[in-house]
Parts: sequence; structure tokens; C-alpha cells
Amino acid sequence: MVRWEPNARGRLERAALELFAERGYEQTTVAEIAERAGLTKRTFFRHFSDKREVLFAGGEAFQAQFVTAVAGAREHATPLEAVALSLHAAGAMLQERHAFARERSAVIAANRELQERELVKLASVAAALAAALRERGVEEPAASLTAEAGIAVFRVAFERWVAEGNERALPDLISESLDALKRLN
Amino acid sequence: MVRWEPNARGRLERAALELFAERGYEQTTVAEIAERAGLTKRTFFRHFSDKREVLFAGGEAFQAQFVTAVAGAREHATPLEAVALSLHAAGAMLQERHAFARERSAVIAANRELQERELVKLASVAAALAAALRERGVEEPAASLTAEAGIAVFRVAFERWVAEGNERALPDLISESLDALKRLN
Repeated sequence: MVRWEPNARGRLERAALELFAERGYEQTTVAEIAERAGLTKRTFFRHFSDKREVLFAGGEAFQAQFVTAVAGAREHATPLEAVALSLHAAGAMLQERHAFARERSAVIAANRELQERELVKLASVAAALAAALRERGVEEPAASLTAEAGIAVFRVAFERWVAEGNERALPDLISESLDALKRLN
Repeated sequence: MVRWEPNARGRLERAALELFAERGYEQTTVAEIAERAGLTKRTFFRHFSDKREVLFAGGEAFQAQFVTAVAGAREHATPLEAVALSLHAAGAMLQERHAFARERSAVIAANRELQERELVKLASVAAALAAALRERGVEEPAASLTAEAGIAVFRVAFERWVAEGNERALPDLISESLDALKRLN
């Protein structure tokens, strides 16, 4: 019989981030995460495949958010307008989880393997964005360039958003970075 | 006594790329590379620390090329002009090794771990470029944004350069990508 645990997933996330911050990511075990959350290892594995998954779950939904927004942009939107829509869609989704994103970023910054995984994730989003632009009839190399530049905008806005002391919202920082991109000369 | 082997490094590179293409990167050993080159393992290790190094040697010189060019840009160059100089410096350096770059890219595209390493390398160049721009007095987030956008330009131009059938030179493709970046709106 599976006992229902109220907000088990949220408790596991919280416990994992606390432990990663206290002991380091490498030194933390799934058993310790479950214990800190007052849950069993079995419950942990109902929600996450491993401890890395606590940090990277939702990656597919994250990527889908970008792609869906590009696909849904109005017919005559420029490639960059379509990408801007997608950055804002992802930004609005992330904004709700600012505290989580900030703690997660600190854990990732402290671990080379996690940094690599994060780079792979963003490279994969860039490739998906370029494909979504090609679907709209944007030709290469414009599709790849717009997608890569969009991800550059996102990366810079995101870093500022999770930086200590920042109180500005991610969509606002994304707008600012996009404007800066358009002014590059 | 160390016997001098004419162009040992070039022969080892050639042998490694051939074997990586024939058998796959994972399946190739240093002993096999040395044998194919008609050299000893000992000679291999005088030139490279491991087989991955055959693909990533010169990474520091590559990064230094970018940074030096940014630092040497004329005083009133815009941030993007400084970055453009550095992309062209790196492009000119790479152009001399087109065949190597093309074969290397195919090996990397076939191996996830090597792809990650390549992403890390480019992320590191972007960070170094941003730092070089800050040295010139460019403020954040403009420094990071220009650096990241510059790397986006480079990545797109590089992919086109190594693509099958391409006969255009890398500096030419970089110019075209830079122009496309400036026209984004």
C-alpha cells in the first residue's frame, strides 16, 4: 500500500537543496535526503530517478515551453520576436520558483559535472528553438543564429536574476537583455 | 636517449583521427594510435596527456587568441567590434586547419562526453571574453551579453564551416553571422 504523503515532492526538493548546500552535492545521499524530508527512500524514487534529477526534473517541460511559444507566435513575427516570446514564456514559468532557482544555481556553480549538465540542457534548448524556427520557415543560418543569440540573452538574464541581492523579476531582465542584443553594433 | 621522430605530433593526430572515425573514440586506445602512427606509446605521451587531449590540445592558445584580440582592439571600438576582432583572429587561426577541424567535429558529434567538453570549452571562452571586455571598461550586463552573443556567432559560423560540402572560409562565415546578428530585430 502506498501511503499518500502531503507534498512529498516539495519536501524532498527542499531537503535535497538544504543538504547539497550544507554538505555538497557529491557528499549527499538519497537516503539522507529522504530522512531529512521525513520520508522513505522508496518515496524519493517515486518522484525522482536519482539525486541529480532533483535539480534537472522539468527540463523537458522547460524546453517544451520555449518550443510551444515559438510555434504559437503570430504569422508575421520576426524570428527574434518569436524567440522573445519563448524567452518570456520560460521566464514567467521560472519566476514563480525564484528561491528554488537561486539555491539550485549555487549548487550547480559548485560542481563541475552539474555545470556540464546545465550547459548541455541549454544547448539542447537552443537546438530545439532553431528547429522550431525552421518549422516557421526561417532559413539557416538565421534560425540557428537567432536561437543561439536568444539563449545568450536568456543566460545573461538568468545569471543576473539568481545573483545575490537581485530583486528584479526574470521577465524584466529578459526584456532588458533583449533590448541590449538589438542595440549591438 | 630520446629518438627524434619527424613530425611525430602530426602523425599521432592523423592516426588518432583515423582510428576515432573508423572504430569510434571510446574503442580506440593510445597503444593503437601510436602503432598506427609507427611510433611508441612513450612518444605519444610526450605530446599528449591522453587520447582526449588529441582533440582538445591548444584550447588555452585558442582562448588566449580571443582575449588578446579583445585587449588589443582600438580604444574607441564598440564591445561588439572588439569581439568581432577576436572572432576573426580565432577564425584565421582555425582556417589553416580545416581538414583537422572537420574530422575532429565528426568525432565529437558522435560522442556525448566530448560534446560536453566542447560546450565547456566554449563557455569558458565566453567567460574569458566577458572578462576581457570588463577590462576595457565595458559594464555588466553588456560585457556578458556581447561575449555570449559573439560565441553564438562563432558557433553558428563554425558549424557551417565544418559542414559537408562547405567551401567557404571561416572568417567569411564569421562576417556573415556577425552581420546577421546586427540585423536581428
